[in-house]
Amino acid sequence: MKNQPGAKPLILVVNDDGITAPGIRALVEAVRPLGDVVVVAPDSPQSGMGHAITINKPLRLQQVHLFEGIPSYHCSGTPADCVKIAVDKVMHRHPDLCVSGINHGSNSSINVLYSGTMSAAVEASLEGIPSVGFSLLDYSHDANFEGAAHYARIICRQILENGLAESSLLNVNIPNLATNDIKGIKICRQATAKWEEEYLQRQDPFGRDYYWLSGNFVNHDKGTDTDEWALAHGYVSIVPVQYDLTAHHGITHINSKWKL
Amino acid sequence: MKNQPGAKPLILVVNDDGITAPGIRALVEAVRPLGDVVVVAPDSPQSGMGHAITINKPLRLQQVHLFEGIPSYHCSGTPADCVKIAVDKVMHRHPDLCVSGINHGSNSSINVLYSGTMSAAVEASLEGIPSVGFSLLDYSHDANFEGAAHYARIICRQILENGLAESSLLNVNIPNLATNDIKGIKICRQATAKWEEEYLQRQDPFGRDYYWLSGNFVNHDKGTDTDEWALAHGYVSIVPVQYDLTAHHGITHINSKWKL
Repeated sequence: MKNQPGAKPLILVVNDDGITAPGIRALVEAVRPLGDVVVVAPDSPQSGMGHAITINKPLRLQQVHLFEGIPSYHCSGTPADCVKIAVDKVMHRHPDLCVSGINHGSNSSINVLYSGTMSAAVEASLEGIPSVGFSLLDYSHDANFEGAAHYARIICRQILENGLAESSLLNVNIPNLATNDIKGIKICRQATAKWEEEYLQRQDPFGRDYYWLSGNFVNHDKGTDTDEWALAHGYVSIVPVQYDLTAHHGITHINSKWKL
Repeated sequence: MKNQPGAKPLILVVNDDGITAPGIRALVEAVRPLGDVVVVAPDSPQSGMGHAITINKPLRLQQVHLFEGIPSYHCSGTPADCVKIAVDKVMHRHPDLCVSGINHGSNSSINVLYSGTMSAAVEASLEGIPSVGFSLLDYSHDANFEGAAHYARIICRQILENGLAESSLLNVNIPNLATNDIKGIKICRQATAKWEEEYLQRQDPFGRDYYWLSGNFVNHDKGTDTDEWALAHGYVSIVPVQYDLTAHHGITHINSKWKL
């Protein structure tokens, strides 16, 4: 269904920390003045789910009453599932914007790959919905989302008014600072960083080993045009993201070096 | 640990259909003549897991004896988890190659995003290991992997001898044809296609609704340089893949159109 003339923008809100997380509440309030808001979010935390979708079992979808005046549903699936089922079963017309988050913790640099927050936004973009994921650099449940919500509203307004480039969406990270201490916004590229894993080995009461994922984030990319640089210097980082993963330099390599 | 002079290549095998799937057995046999092989794969099917990692619970890792003369372990985590824990806890030196699959079903075009097979390969590439995911265009458990295994060996030999471009890996899909009927290999870009979802709504014995993901794959990209074109015309498709998701055209859009 197309927008009626004069209709307010329709905004889908999703996240990966689950529908009861404080971060999604902050995002709902940030975008409430911008349009008609609908929430479809996981019924449990889904951090680190990447672009997982549920194909071997069915999904549940349940209306809940958590946000004053906002139609809201929780879903038993992943963040990407929430977007898919929202588009097919919940939204009465094509949304004008999908916002994901506000995530409790960073999704800068290579973390975009593991992020349920960003995968929900990617899924919306695949559905043709302008979309953006927001993450605050504070993993705690009781994080202060004031600065993040302030910038989320500014950025969402720009998307609604001035759009996004074709086949792209935004990965926005916000430093964990008071609103007035944030220096502004930088448009960035994804820093080339990595995780160095170290699994912690423990034993259960029956003498069997188990392993906890642990590790260190290592950034060797000193570029001042990266999201890591912006965040370390007190700026909100915006990285435009694409989902055409073709490595064109890799095509050149094979065509020139391989013997097929 | 560096390779000793004259040491055989060390090859890590992983998949997303689980360690008992026929596809991983075909891949183990395909790469067995090329080096020292180690298997670390999920203990249960993990299709559609995307780049999910396990952060809210610990992992189990258990040695098994499924492949004659090949050290093998199953892991309770996702395909990406298997690569991470293999590198940290199983492999005694840095692998020279990681192969993922052979997946039961296509991972061409946009399916790369949802694919556990490809996310394991991406994870290995992030760890600095040359890597490749293989997928056969046949979803059945009893698929014939002969053609896929034949081309997997050819491609792995090329990677070991002639390498990959920096920060790239390969997404290889194989048409479901007899080996002699496959026309050869095409180096491709990822086709711009999408899924149109349709959730099937059913009721459980207690009268509550549940939803099965269903849908149609729609390819509007008629490019003869795409993986979809190659596969439809009987060729093996190789798409070099990157994990820097920055949409540089999106940076230009914001810098020229937005009012920040």
